[in-house]
Amino acid sequence: MAPQKLTEEETLTEICTIPGWKVIFGGKLLRIFQFKDFVEAFSFLTAVALEAEKLGHHPEFRNVYGMVEFILTTHDAGGLTALDFKLARKIDTLAHKVLS
Amino acid sequence: MAPQKLTEEETLTEICTIPGWKVIFGGKLLRIFQFKDFVEAFSFLTAVALEAEKLGHHPEFRNVYGMVEFILTTHDAGGLTALDFKLARKIDTLAHKVLS
Amino acid sequence: MAPQKLTEEETLTEICTIPGWKVIFGGKLLRIFQFKDFVEAFSFLTAVALEAEKLGHHPEFRNVYGMVEFILTTHDAGGLTALDFKLARKIDTLAHKVLS
Amino acid sequence: MAPQKLTEEETLTEICTIPGWKVIFGGKLLRIFQFKDFVEAFSFLTAVALEAEKLGHHPEFRNVYGMVEFILTTHDAGGLTALDFKLARKIDTLAHKVLS
Repeated sequence: MAPQKLTEEETLTEICTIPGWKVIFGGKLLRIFQFKDFVEAFSFLTAVALEAEKLGHHPEFRNVYGMVEFILTTHDAGGLTALDFKLARKIDTLAHKVLS
Repeated sequence: MAPQKLTEEETLTEICTIPGWKVIFGGKLLRIFQFKDFVEAFSFLTAVALEAEKLGHHPEFRNVYGMVEFILTTHDAGGLTALDFKLARKIDTLAHKVLS
Repeated sequence: MAPQKLTEEETLTEICTIPGWKVIFGGKLLRIFQFKDFVEAFSFLTAVALEAEKLGHHPEFRNVYGMVEFILTTHDAGGLTALDFKLARKIDTLAHKVLS
Repeated sequence: MAPQKLTEEETLTEICTIPGWKVIFGGKLLRIFQFKDFVEAFSFLTAVALEAEKLGHHPEFRNVYGMVEFILTTHDAGGLTALDFKLARKIDTLAHKVLS
């Protein structure tokens, strides 16, 4: 039971719940976080890794020292699904704890 | 240049700077932290791991779900050294960020 | 649907499938691994952490530099269940890759 | 004492010691690894993170499930330095252990 690609309307409703994220070309979600150093960035990434593996849905991520960039999409559905927004909200919760 | 075992007086001065820790039998420092779940505990442990490897001084740690216990000592010196207190303060700083 | 405590007979059958583990007092599984250094030990622990969180069943573990000790039990069942043996086999597979 | 940018000749000598890497536009080293799944990729990344933090020199890395891409350069020197080649060799050693 693969997750289904969201309609444009569903996507617009979901995107309002995660203000830090942008929809980029090709139906992907993008967000960049800036942490104070590599230790903070990588321990945050470890928390994201644990949640992603449990969810069975993995983000693309890029790291340069304190910067972490995520790109989310569901390859099997050819675009954004409910899983991407679930993962985005999970990432926000984990980042919020470190950055606040 | 191995770190030198602290005298009893030096130990007493240092221990006052880290109120959450106890000196236990055999010249070791002990502290237990309680996190809300395993994801929080393990991402904290990853931050500690990065700092310990960089410092070249590793804690003994034990984990059960959200609980993390540390035991610090300097085997080469046969007791507590300045390195143990440095690591204890580093661990406190990392835990403080997550728990506050 | 909590996992059920295994009977003595079931436990004996299972224990034969994981020769490196011992049943210790109180219905727990114990195994100790020795890695060459902390980096090897901690990256192995990270793999175990990802699998444990996904399984929803977490080991107790203790680390001192290259040594990693696991104690497995199912608290809710008051002893060993199928989940403990599943996790033990998973840990063995992950360790085998690093140690061979 | 910042590391110094290598001359073209020094770069050519070094690059021969790490056959899996390519020099890309702008004086950077690139290598892509493919692991069997996310658990294997992320535990490898954790080992790299520990070594990088200890070295005080961090790679840019990108991960998508089992794929890990590294881009190495020394920003302070405006190009490749001995540190980049040291980190590249360290990454190769860690990857070799997992992939062989």
